[in-house]
Amino acid sequence: MAVGEFPFPQMHPVPGFSLGVASAGIKRPGRRDVVVMAAAEGATVAGVFTTNAFCAAPVTVCKERLAKGAPRYFVTNTGNANACTGASGLANARKVCAEVARLLNCDENLVLPFSTGVIGEPLPVDKILPVLPDAVAALAEDQWENAGHGIMTTDTRPKGATAAFTFEGETIVVSGISKGSGMIKPNMATMLGYVATNAKVSQPVLQALLREATDLSFNRITVDGDTSTNDSGVLIATGKTALPEITEAAGDYYQKLRAAVIEVHEQLARAIVADGEGATKFVTIEVSGAAKKAEATQVAYAVAHSPLIKTALFASDPNWGRIVAAIGYAGVDGLDADKVRVHLGDALIVENGGRADSYTEQQGQAVMNQAEITIRIDLGRGQEADRVWTTDFSHDYVTINADYRS
Amino acid sequence: MAVGEFPFPQMHPVPGFSLGVASAGIKRPGRRDVVVMAAAEGATVAGVFTTNAFCAAPVTVCKERLAKGAPRYFVTNTGNANACTGASGLANARKVCAEVARLLNCDENLVLPFSTGVIGEPLPVDKILPVLPDAVAALAEDQWENAGHGIMTTDTRPKGATAAFTFEGETIVVSGISKGSGMIKPNMATMLGYVATNAKVSQPVLQALLREATDLSFNRITVDGDTSTNDSGVLIATGKTALPEITEAAGDYYQKLRAAVIEVHEQLARAIVADGEGATKFVTIEVSGAAKKAEATQVAYAVAHSPLIKTALFASDPNWGRIVAAIGYAGVDGLDADKVRVHLGDALIVENGGRADSYTEQQGQAVMNQAEITIRIDLGRGQEADRVWTTDFSHDYVTINADYRS
Repeated sequence: MAVGEFPFPQMHPVPGFSLGVASAGIKRPGRRDVVVMAAAEGATVAGVFTTNAFCAAPVTVCKERLAKGAPRYFVTNTGNANACTGASGLANARKVCAEVARLLNCDENLVLPFSTGVIGEPLPVDKILPVLPDAVAALAEDQWENAGHGIMTTDTRPKGATAAFTFEGETIVVSGISKGSGMIKPNMATMLGYVATNAKVSQPVLQALLREATDLSFNRITVDGDTSTNDSGVLIATGKTALPEITEAAGDYYQKLRAAVIEVHEQLARAIVADGEGATKFVTIEVSGAAKKAEATQVAYAVAHSPLIKTALFASDPNWGRIVAAIGYAGVDGLDADKVRVHLGDALIVENGGRADSYTEQQGQAVMNQAEITIRIDLGRGQEADRVWTTDFSHDYVTINADYRS
Repeated sequence: MAVGEFPFPQMHPVPGFSLGVASAGIKRPGRRDVVVMAAAEGATVAGVFTTNAFCAAPVTVCKERLAKGAPRYFVTNTGNANACTGASGLANARKVCAEVARLLNCDENLVLPFSTGVIGEPLPVDKILPVLPDAVAALAEDQWENAGHGIMTTDTRPKGATAAFTFEGETIVVSGISKGSGMIKPNMATMLGYVATNAKVSQPVLQALLREATDLSFNRITVDGDTSTNDSGVLIATGKTALPEITEAAGDYYQKLRAAVIEVHEQLARAIVADGEGATKFVTIEVSGAAKKAEATQVAYAVAHSPLIKTALFASDPNWGRIVAAIGYAGVDGLDADKVRVHLGDALIVENGGRADSYTEQQGQAVMNQAEITIRIDLGRGQEADRVWTTDFSHDYVTINADYRS
């Protein structure tokens, strides 16, 4: 199941960035499950990764290699997360990278590995290595949609987003793909996200921009509150433009790029939520009037993670009592319940510590019947705000996760 | 659905403590939904209550009155939580207490109110007041099971526990009932719990004992991670014994009482989990080897709240990858994944950052096929430990919460 239509967009190819896909049959024969990506020489790369203490072998290798220099190649497999696999997992991740390096005749430290799928099983290197030549041979700038398919696991559709702007007569594009459907509550990173631009950007500026865009997008979504062992997001700047290198986070050119990068990240994050396991609703939770941003985030996630609220959303039941209960237990010190105001869509449902006089069950029902629902919470104690996107909890969520070994 | 058999025990009546039940038809005609309890003159009472900022009107009244003096009467209704009901909710809670006081010819400050059920609807005082005389007329020391029925909401069975010991030839009994099935992640209190003893105990000692027993029982269970607006637990000491008053938490007599009170609380807490909404498994999560107790608690709850682990438990799937992922994101600073050891029942499944060499899927499957499952996690960084009890997440959980307006 998935909410709404998120058709794969007509992608702007990114000059200097190509993608190639192959089928290794890791989980199912014939499925596209290996993707290689390549950036032009001189590209800069930024990365953000899961904070899970049991981070996967490929995440460890990515972090090491990003610290060392400027990687240019990216190899991804689905069907196996290579997580909780100990020393042999690290060796396997490096083995796959070494083969990509051999095929492309580069130093293996320039290759970053990514894996997603079942945790704790040995990476089937013997299936992956033989198809890497196919993926390398297929490298081309117009393969975004194919690569979007190649990184899917329980996703029901590929996820892409694209933006472009002109500056001083030059066209700058930003394109990206992401995957993710369950075990989604990224922390400092996404499930898997790859975004590229032809702008030329110094690595520190690129890293700061990726961090900002991630915090506004992948770090503000949750399906089930489970932070994966493999979350990884990269932003690649190929520099294939006549415009000068961006070396500081300032100026009109930077601001236009920033807006495009954030827009692409937000679209990719929304696409992950809309394709959440068993999702029938796309839910936005906006919290304002907080004394600190952290408490706005805290309340938003308390509401987003409550199984009672998520099952009520599935049932299209305007059960606002469960919403106030979650606000109440979110752990905001000294919260004055009488000052809290809650809107469901445009309907004011709670104020002065109780149900708003103007509220009718019909108003709430009308909002709940929609596939996209916004819950707005004003804590009435300050100026800070935050927003998260989430889904409901359906029978299909239970079925998918009781049946699928992830 | 519910796990295992938890037959209502043959209760020891508590001298000086009586219970009476009536039917007000709050939610369904004919259902037992109003309970009055009365303690003998001279009884001491301790109470613990929800930390939810949207705490219910009866919780506010209970706290006020416990601070003022020694209450002796307790009036409970189900079917309506009288939560998020503003000033009129407080007035309604006091109105019910005043009627009990009138019938029993006492000061209304000696009556404590308790409510459980739907949040945000006005308390149907007009239904409750007329049946209070029935409940008062029924007051008797042998009505524990009847009262256990009278406080149920989505519970599928009444929950009671009882213990007794002798000291210097005198018999001391401890008996209690509880209710709770969903919106269960008590914080500083239980859903509703009433435990009474005929020991004579000074109020400060009784309060400290209730706090300790609650932290070992009701504060270590979770069904869905949602902390209710109405959680309340009381411990009543009627003093109907020839033994002297306990005025400090020390000595053989106190230790025997302490053990009995904790045992009764733990049985009542386990009964709530086993009757969790849609529960098919009773799951114990034991965390040891923590540097601080708080981090053991944190890891135990991260595992207990993960929807991915709960759905795997429902499917009897030994999906240990989801367990290590939850340990990894629980937020323990500097956790060394290589030192973590995880057992499923008696089977060692994870060590040295990966699957244990000795582990076989058959071992894990054999544990998962049982209705009672223990997950043991050794963090390998200290001597502190904690334990929580929880349930799985089933289709029935979704059905119950998508259909029931709580």
